[in-house]
Amino acid sequence: MDFLIDKMIEKNSAAVVGIDTHLDYLPHQMREGVNDFKSAADAILAFNKGIIDGIAPLVPAVKVQAAYYEEYGYEGMRCFAETISYAGSKGLVVIADVKRNDIGSTASCYARAYIGETQIGNNALPAFGADIATVNGYLGIDGIKPFINLTEGGDKGIFVLVKTSNPSGSQLQDLLLSDGRPVYMKMGELVREWGRSSVGRRGYSCVGAVVGATHPQQASELRHTMEGVMCLVPGYGAQGGSADDAACCFDAMGLGAIVNSSRGIICAYDKPRYAGLDYAAAAAAAAEDMNGDIAAALKKRGVARIGG
Amino acid sequence: MDFLIDKMIEKNSAAVVGIDTHLDYLPHQMREGVNDFKSAADAILAFNKGIIDGIAPLVPAVKVQAAYYEEYGYEGMRCFAETISYAGSKGLVVIADVKRNDIGSTASCYARAYIGETQIGNNALPAFGADIATVNGYLGIDGIKPFINLTEGGDKGIFVLVKTSNPSGSQLQDLLLSDGRPVYMKMGELVREWGRSSVGRRGYSCVGAVVGATHPQQASELRHTMEGVMCLVPGYGAQGGSADDAACCFDAMGLGAIVNSSRGIICAYDKPRYAGLDYAAAAAAAAEDMNGDIAAALKKRGVARIGG
Repeated sequence: MDFLIDKMIEKNSAAVVGIDTHLDYLPHQMREGVNDFKSAADAILAFNKGIIDGIAPLVPAVKVQAAYYEEYGYEGMRCFAETISYAGSKGLVVIADVKRNDIGSTASCYARAYIGETQIGNNALPAFGADIATVNGYLGIDGIKPFINLTEGGDKGIFVLVKTSNPSGSQLQDLLLSDGRPVYMKMGELVREWGRSSVGRRGYSCVGAVVGATHPQQASELRHTMEGVMCLVPGYGAQGGSADDAACCFDAMGLGAIVNSSRGIICAYDKPRYAGLDYAAAAAAAAEDMNGDIAAALKKRGVARIGG
Repeated sequence: MDFLIDKMIEKNSAAVVGIDTHLDYLPHQMREGVNDFKSAADAILAFNKGIIDGIAPLVPAVKVQAAYYEEYGYEGMRCFAETISYAGSKGLVVIADVKRNDIGSTASCYARAYIGETQIGNNALPAFGADIATVNGYLGIDGIKPFINLTEGGDKGIFVLVKTSNPSGSQLQDLLLSDGRPVYMKMGELVREWGRSSVGRRGYSCVGAVVGATHPQQASELRHTMEGVMCLVPGYGAQGGSADDAACCFDAMGLGAIVNSSRGIICAYDKPRYAGLDYAAAAAAAAEDMNGDIAAALKKRGVARIGG
């Protein structure tokens, strides 16, 4: 994950902007005349480009949530691909939030689709071309290995779901195993093990973990157990997690975690706090506020800036 | 799941053809001139239509695996959508094998994308328009409920991953919980519970389970525990599961399960047994053989025909 950590240090930011753009999130005038999948996808892409222009100088990465694009069919997936490409062109690390999972041969297709290339005749072409993909580990290493294989060059990574931010994540993840540990802790150990051979110069492997900001105590335990595992932390902001909660996932250098906010940034234009700003400027202002919020939480833990 | 069971009885078949079409699976002449995502997607669609024409009279359903299409980018997703639409037009029940999973608001997008409709202005449009989607339950009911809500009309369903067919599925799924049961059994119980309010006239709910044919003993236990839960059984054929193994998932009427075969059918033209047949005729012959194989396994259990 050196490529991501280097960007975090460069921008002095551990914030990720979640570009989870539902059509309803667009300012009214951007939705005018939209009446089918193509026009919806075009409108969302225009909106996303504005957001990216606004936040690119301020944060190291964006997370693009596939569900919001799949809802608009293959035109939505075109928008997804073009959003990833545009964010990459602005120097951002791009996380494809796809939570894919399948048996080995099928997982290979997913891995190539999101962080690799597809061979067609003599051409190797990137289908979606992200830097990092999120994956679900319910099928064990078979479904993860094809992704790990593609991270060997050091410029790709994955985040595996460990402890999710939603209320019912506990239904399976918090069950106690016969040795007294909860399921999520076992998943965390598997993730650490899967990344052991790819630890970079910053001390973190290419196999990260998703750990919700809505569970600070469990996040602290996981931080302790998952040495060398970078955490992607959803749940900050709209879902109720605070910067102090998220700070549990960081190490003593202010590394080891990135914190995602989606609606809190891309819909900031709708908040009284950012009144008078256009949607892109409001997103930039909200990203700056988020950077300040995380910095304050890390300062309480003795971290002066990202990377120490 | 009445709509699926009715089709099984009508065709006297519990076979599902997995249309998991990698470009390499196409006969050489169908790949000529293919050099980008669009031409690859067009070639795969033409191949799929031939397969569907061949097998439509013989089986109740097809399963279309998204990974094989996502690998070809948004053009691949167009092919995915058109394959689903074509299979539906031939009277087949279509399972979108997407294994999606996310928190509630995001899962709602996935649910609408695959088995619902997307609202754009005054239009409600199906993005992919399948009848059934596969989902991963690691996030608990939050991520499942939006799908269940869309099944209330009785013409949609889901299959939740319980015990997968791959070797490393055991890494998480077979762990013993503090009460002595394995994780997959707990997942099976959750699935039964989630479907309890939607049991149809055939005795099965809209919430089914994925149970690999490669684990016959565990499948038998699950069949016993998961009353009213329809099983989608992968792992038959290329993955090593036999019809006798798969038969553990059926009830005494020959209902309660459908068995998937992908490469065994769509690549049948490459096998000596089907030499001289074109790929569509070979697929049809292989589907007939699979029907015969399952019928023989069920006969050993006293089932004369699907539905009794």
